[in-house]
Amino acid sequence: MREAWIVGAGMTAFGRFPSRPLRDLAGEAARAALADAEAAPERVQAIIFANATQGALEGQHGIRGQAALDGFGFGNAPVINVENACASASTALHLAQTLVASGAYDCVLALGAEKMATPDPAAAMAAFEGSWDLSRRAETIASLAAMGRDVTPPPEAEAAAPHSVFMDVYAAFCRHHMAKFGTTQRQMAVVSAKNHAHSVANPRAQYRRPFTIDEVLAARLVAWPLTLPMCSPISDGAAAALVCAQPLGQASRAVRIRASVLMSGERRDPDRLEDHVARKAARRAHELAGLGPEDVDVVECHDATAFGEILQSEMLGFFPLGEGGPAAERGETRIGGRIPFNPSGGLESKGHPIGATGLGQVFEIVSQLRGEAGARQVEGARIGLVENGGGLRGVEEAAVAVTLLERA
Amino acid sequence: MREAWIVGAGMTAFGRFPSRPLRDLAGEAARAALADAEAAPERVQAIIFANATQGALEGQHGIRGQAALDGFGFGNAPVINVENACASASTALHLAQTLVASGAYDCVLALGAEKMATPDPAAAMAAFEGSWDLSRRAETIASLAAMGRDVTPPPEAEAAAPHSVFMDVYAAFCRHHMAKFGTTQRQMAVVSAKNHAHSVANPRAQYRRPFTIDEVLAARLVAWPLTLPMCSPISDGAAAALVCAQPLGQASRAVRIRASVLMSGERRDPDRLEDHVARKAARRAHELAGLGPEDVDVVECHDATAFGEILQSEMLGFFPLGEGGPAAERGETRIGGRIPFNPSGGLESKGHPIGATGLGQVFEIVSQLRGEAGARQVEGARIGLVENGGGLRGVEEAAVAVTLLERA
Repeated sequence: MREAWIVGAGMTAFGRFPSRPLRDLAGEAARAALADAEAAPERVQAIIFANATQGALEGQHGIRGQAALDGFGFGNAPVINVENACASASTALHLAQTLVASGAYDCVLALGAEKMATPDPAAAMAAFEGSWDLSRRAETIASLAAMGRDVTPPPEAEAAAPHSVFMDVYAAFCRHHMAKFGTTQRQMAVVSAKNHAHSVANPRAQYRRPFTIDEVLAARLVAWPLTLPMCSPISDGAAAALVCAQPLGQASRAVRIRASVLMSGERRDPDRLEDHVARKAARRAHELAGLGPEDVDVVECHDATAFGEILQSEMLGFFPLGEGGPAAERGETRIGGRIPFNPSGGLESKGHPIGATGLGQVFEIVSQLRGEAGARQVEGARIGLVENGGGLRGVEEAAVAVTLLERA
Repeated sequence: MREAWIVGAGMTAFGRFPSRPLRDLAGEAARAALADAEAAPERVQAIIFANATQGALEGQHGIRGQAALDGFGFGNAPVINVENACASASTALHLAQTLVASGAYDCVLALGAEKMATPDPAAAMAAFEGSWDLSRRAETIASLAAMGRDVTPPPEAEAAAPHSVFMDVYAAFCRHHMAKFGTTQRQMAVVSAKNHAHSVANPRAQYRRPFTIDEVLAARLVAWPLTLPMCSPISDGAAAALVCAQPLGQASRAVRIRASVLMSGERRDPDRLEDHVARKAARRAHELAGLGPEDVDVVECHDATAFGEILQSEMLGFFPLGEGGPAAERGETRIGGRIPFNPSGGLESKGHPIGATGLGQVFEIVSQLRGEAGARQVEGARIGLVENGGGLRGVEEAAVAVTLLERA
């Protein structure tokens, strides 16, 4: 299999930009990735375009990428539109890497863009709900309720929670983990406060205000035990990576894709976290690269909620089951700790424009491996891991991508 | 680049099946492709799932393939959801071939499924319209009106036409071709009658009733000069191809992918058909395979309307510009003619379940190359060509795929 390199990375700020259409965000990220690689648009032989909500929110189905990139200068290069819910952008990166590895293409742009800040919250909710297997929704809700019942929320909690489908799902997973391993709400608050502290140094983050642990705990409840600063927001944004068969531009700034693994979750016993699909994907990625968790210097993971980061820190093999919360509490996952998670601020604070998220994570790891992350730099980072998950099939993520990147 | 073979092909009947959900259609096609290859689901290492309308019609976005294939037995094999309007299924085949060529996967299922027959025609229309670049819709409509003005429809025509966005588009292209090359409405009727005659022998076709040329001309007008039997219908259906690095099962039934080319249309002068993206894609496919149009024995092309077939017979290099209509009139494109087009009945008569169409075309060519097409067999077919187009960017197809297949 031919090697594939990330030779350029680009990203807009994440946030809420009512006056910027999708085309504008996508164009900025694409231009930034090309400029970073010192490459002209003609160099790009194919574009993989990731987006999750434009169908539901704007009625633009089918050819979202062609519409967003019309007139950009890519000529007749094929545009391939992909969706995998919150893992759409990592799916695009996986395809870009594989297309380059095949020899059919030498240079492929993976581009994710999302425009979610809409005046119609019901439409946004419908877009989210499409990330479920809707035909089996009732059954999944019953499984989740069963998972969540092990820990009783305080009496005021249920009344306070507004309806939010995916945050309810995360809360059920979280309560299950609390019951099984003794994970605490305070540990979730530690993760949230850490990520909000990280993003203070990230000029592209949606939020750049620090929270104390007590402030996180005292904030508005979304779905017990998750409070608002523990949950990723609604965001607009775009991110891109140019993947080529050889380093372009300054060779020392190229980043090698050591492994790119995509898997789909299958129905499983909710109680057996040992069989979690992220665990399998991480093992496979390490196998492919001939590396172990001990070789990884920095991680961006899918903290759609603070609990997601605790869970993934275990699934990805960095801590034993049940040890993710205590490790976070000991400071092991902050910048300067043993294995820094989400130096960008993560989805919780950097933002979560669904179809752009995976490539936003890649942008952060590429910056870290190049030593260009400024005040949030993880010193000496050589190997980085990206984990991005999306959708729900039963109690599993419908898609999980684990990518290992290495500096040149 | 590693070779890729179609080792199994499967297809449901195309038609209107109110009681069959998408999952049921997708499952039937997937099972048929696996059975054809004598392969178990465990053999499949990745699934590329194509669908165009489920977001708009059912609210199932994001993880359509995971939802449709839940419980099928594919385990943790990644599902990658792709969209490219009417070219979605060919995009899936192109990815399957490239993934196999990369060496990262040995066996990939390309699967397209569509469920369009809905009690709500407005929703179906919204799904279609999403195949445009909606943000530039007004501009495109103005270009099309300018293209179509060269030929004046009879006075009763406009009043008779119900509103149908994509048929209006085809009609504008068609009038332009009539003005430029003298193509006639009767030539369109010849193509339609031929395709309806072909599908009488196709047990999977939506319509199996022959039409005389005069019957086609006398039928209800959809958008002048196109009458109902010249236009593809609303259809449900699914089709699949299992693509592997080696022949499986009976080696003599494997079909080699000689070339798979995907391109996106870019804005161009509507008058310069020489620059049409399908022309470029066909040339590139022939270059890659070291073949010319004279080597091709049978074609399935994207006859969303009868005019589409006339245009593509020119774009694909089988006839000079303006000669497609006369060649059809001389019988060169019927079974038994010099180069048979759409022996399956084509989109016009076999049906057009958008996200399944490209793989339905592949199913037909695979059957033809194996000599398994029964009463519609093209004698001695060794090389087949599939052309599938989708979406609209300016006056160009937003995606065009040309595939060359060869019998083992």
